[in-house]
Amino acid sequence: MRICLAQLNYHIGNFEENFRKIEAAVNEAITQKADIVVFGELALTGYPPRDFLEFDDFIALSNQYLDKVTALSSNIAIVIGAPTVNPVVEGKDLFNSAYFLAEGQIKYIQHKTLLPTYDIFDEYRYFEPNSEFGIVNYKGKKIALTVCEDIWNIGNENPLYVTCPLDEMKSFSPDLVINVSASPFDHNHAADRLAIVQENAIRYNLPVFYVNHVGAQTEVIFDGGSVVASPNGKVFEEMVYFKEAIKTFDLQSVINHDQEIVQQKNKIALIHDAIITGIKDYFGKLGFTKAILGLSGGIDSAVTCALAARALGPKNVTGLLMPSQFSSDHSVEDARALAENLGMPYEIITIKELFEAFESKLKPIFTDLPFNVTEENIQARCRGILLMAMSNKFGHILLNTSNKSEMAVGYGTLYGDLCGGLSVLGDVYKMDVYALAEYINKDGIVIPENSIQKPPSAELRPDQKDADSLPPYDVLDEILHLYIEERKGPKEIISLGHDEALVSRIVRLVNINEFKRYQTAPALRVSSKAFGMGRRMPIVGKYLS
Amino acid sequence: MRICLAQLNYHIGNFEENFRKIEAAVNEAITQKADIVVFGELALTGYPPRDFLEFDDFIALSNQYLDKVTALSSNIAIVIGAPTVNPVVEGKDLFNSAYFLAEGQIKYIQHKTLLPTYDIFDEYRYFEPNSEFGIVNYKGKKIALTVCEDIWNIGNENPLYVTCPLDEMKSFSPDLVINVSASPFDHNHAADRLAIVQENAIRYNLPVFYVNHVGAQTEVIFDGGSVVASPNGKVFEEMVYFKEAIKTFDLQSVINHDQEIVQQKNKIALIHDAIITGIKDYFGKLGFTKAILGLSGGIDSAVTCALAARALGPKNVTGLLMPSQFSSDHSVEDARALAENLGMPYEIITIKELFEAFESKLKPIFTDLPFNVTEENIQARCRGILLMAMSNKFGHILLNTSNKSEMAVGYGTLYGDLCGGLSVLGDVYKMDVYALAEYINKDGIVIPENSIQKPPSAELRPDQKDADSLPPYDVLDEILHLYIEERKGPKEIISLGHDEALVSRIVRLVNINEFKRYQTAPALRVSSKAFGMGRRMPIVGKYLS
Repeated sequence: MRICLAQLNYHIGNFEENFRKIEAAVNEAITQKADIVVFGELALTGYPPRDFLEFDDFIALSNQYLDKVTALSSNIAIVIGAPTVNPVVEGKDLFNSAYFLAEGQIKYIQHKTLLPTYDIFDEYRYFEPNSEFGIVNYKGKKIALTVCEDIWNIGNENPLYVTCPLDEMKSFSPDLVINVSASPFDHNHAADRLAIVQENAIRYNLPVFYVNHVGAQTEVIFDGGSVVASPNGKVFEEMVYFKEAIKTFDLQSVINHDQEIVQQKNKIALIHDAIITGIKDYFGKLGFTKAILGLSGGIDSAVTCALAARALGPKNVTGLLMPSQFSSDHSVEDARALAENLGMPYEIITIKELFEAFESKLKPIFTDLPFNVTEENIQARCRGILLMAMSNKFGHILLNTSNKSEMAVGYGTLYGDLCGGLSVLGDVYKMDVYALAEYINKDGIVIPENSIQKPPSAELRPDQKDADSLPPYDVLDEILHLYIEERKGPKEIISLGHDEALVSRIVRLVNINEFKRYQTAPALRVSSKAFGMGRRMPIVGKYLS
Repeated sequence: MRICLAQLNYHIGNFEENFRKIEAAVNEAITQKADIVVFGELALTGYPPRDFLEFDDFIALSNQYLDKVTALSSNIAIVIGAPTVNPVVEGKDLFNSAYFLAEGQIKYIQHKTLLPTYDIFDEYRYFEPNSEFGIVNYKGKKIALTVCEDIWNIGNENPLYVTCPLDEMKSFSPDLVINVSASPFDHNHAADRLAIVQENAIRYNLPVFYVNHVGAQTEVIFDGGSVVASPNGKVFEEMVYFKEAIKTFDLQSVINHDQEIVQQKNKIALIHDAIITGIKDYFGKLGFTKAILGLSGGIDSAVTCALAARALGPKNVTGLLMPSQFSSDHSVEDARALAENLGMPYEIITIKELFEAFESKLKPIFTDLPFNVTEENIQARCRGILLMAMSNKFGHILLNTSNKSEMAVGYGTLYGDLCGGLSVLGDVYKMDVYALAEYINKDGIVIPENSIQKPPSAELRPDQKDADSLPPYDVLDEILHLYIEERKGPKEIISLGHDEALVSRIVRLVNINEFKRYQTAPALRVSSKAFGMGRRMPIVGKYLS
């Protein structure tokens, strides 16, 4: 038996395009002499379809296209994820199912048992958990079908769940396991995924065929990396990251374990590739080609710009240099050097006169009140207006350049430098922005050394430096990681050796700035806990604030 | 037996203040000679605590304060909602529980069975559903404890669930039902809630004591309206809306049904009171007292302003009038009349020169490209900068004045008129804004008749009217309601008699403007489907767009 894994980049709700890709992949699988071709979880709808699932009209469309996919199964069996209407009135309206299609018919449906409802996942919002287990008999093989999370509770050791689907299926003596997944990227997740597939293979002594999505849906990035594991747990294949791929495997070879293919997992390289995928798909799926961003001469805008140029092509990225009266001499030079290194268009507009126009309008009300954060914000917001004006006039999407460390502590101006349709670095801590800059420069200088070396500054008042308001970024990032990703409380963080006053101050800054993050662009998710849909915090909360 | 219902306004994560209120209410209940005092669901933490629940530190604090509440129970029994750590490793980390405290000890814990995971609710994200049922024996009475949603699946007829907790408890022959709730307001919900409490009373032939929260947590508003129902289903008491209240009931009188108290439910009056509660608590719980907003002379800013003045006091609300060269003569007059009617401070800043400063800066790049939405947006964004500058300098919170109809179709400028910390009317359709204006004026003119009568306009280009770009608001609102609240697809909406091209256009506008709503302020929730945390849509989705 030959099994083909189709690792595709779907588009949420774009049934026509998703079907076209699936149809082409079925034909390719037939060319590769596959007996079965396997697609991802909720492949026809794209993942996550979110509240589109609450529209009967959306589900009806999904069913129509599922019929069309079923019709493709006359010469090959197809495994594909799709929603199923719950036939009984009790419980949620839908199941999240794996379909086994063959001979132009639905042969079997296995619903998903373990419904992730944490971080960015909301599956229990839509789906009823499965409690019935079976198996597919096809061409003399017994196939256990599972959907994504179903294989993540081996032997009931995952504290989130109380059932282990493959334990329930064991009594049917399956010959192989197929898993249809939509498992989003974070910089540790490819390793976790490989480990869980291997553990399943070993525990059940079965070959496992695991198919993932690839490509980005707004902030959620899928890295692909579909896996085939031999019964002894060796990785027979780990498919390419961040690219579509259609590849057929001989079941007997997998059982015999005659090869081992695992990809390198370098954190910064993965983040680099993930962000490029994220930018490319955000633009592509929205039908845009051109980006604009503010270039300050600093490292965040430089890294954002270099990544955008790699994703969209340098000619499609416009830099806007907007020096203020407080900008250092080097700022414009560094920004210009970046644009020239990348071979991209740029414009320069000074903001002094705009700032002064606002100062003069506000003078009768502000009278002699001293210069403070108000005036800093006015400058940042003048830049926001200029960037949005360019974006409106020429049809660019504005890229936001804030990093995760700044977003965490609220170091940024709402409606100013926090403007933008997509936050490129909003899930990348400042120390990792430095590492990304070095990685981008590994084959030759793209980001000017000066942008990397100079002390970070917002340049909104004379001689301003980030270090005036914030601790060193290595210390800040570590405290933030402990609080945000690890969800440790202040006492625990202090017990790990951090300064008590500093920890209280940082944690408080994170919590009181929830209102800013609520209004900023979706940030490409590259960590296990990004701001946005996966981290849901009260604004008026009074915890640690 | 005498049972006291304590309908309180909690503050999420503010354990100290919540405890202080609970302690005062316990003392009041003792004064009222109650045997039992009942608080709301997750009362100590406030509801919804969202991802604070994922912090062990937060749960430890909750447990510390629960111990303090337990210590208050030496002379009175206390029923209160609080999270419980799940003692077994399988399943989610927490239960959402009702505690029965007496004699300074925890006498009984009943966990919540039905975990709402839809709209704004994410309970399955945090909590394991209960599957064990029992009863409390206290002073010769058998008490069935339930938590909020637990009574919303009468006889398994609610399609969201597969269990009916009170059916499970029936075998213990309870004498009364207590329900600790945190059931948010929408303009139909008070009626729904009354009906469900009555149905439970009738079905089980038992008195039901139902306690709700009151007050707002960011966008989520609790209206109170706690209910006592007699076994025959008559409403013995419906407690006050939007106010704290502590009231004791004699069980035998409730069983005998010797009174019936139900409050009027006028949609617009309820929305009016809900929004005032929402504004008051957003400011109060964040520690702010002063608001600013732009006054255009139009109805949306006028209604927002009047509501803010009622919530915060007119002296605490500053209006900023920012006429452009396209503003009509009446605009400033109408805005000024409103401010004078309310007795509130206001300032006037013209934006022509600011707009021209941007035009001149952009001229070398824009050359002779025609005036379009870009220039309209620059004006709206100049206003945003001025408002935010005032807010920054004087410590106001900026109120957003957009209504739900505009938010739905994207008729507003991101970082311009969409600025603001709180959206006051973002869940109120335009036709309801008119109704609110009439309601506000019912005892005398507050909102100038001219603001109500004149055709709506953004006044960002010569002779602009909303009606140039949008259908009449009564038609628009009906289509939006069918799509947003009713979740009907285009075919269904058209079959109800709406124009096909118009429906497609409106639905498409709603879907392609998700990116704008993603970045706007939380909107006070007054309907069953508000934008924000309760409506989760993909940005890159390609459904009906």
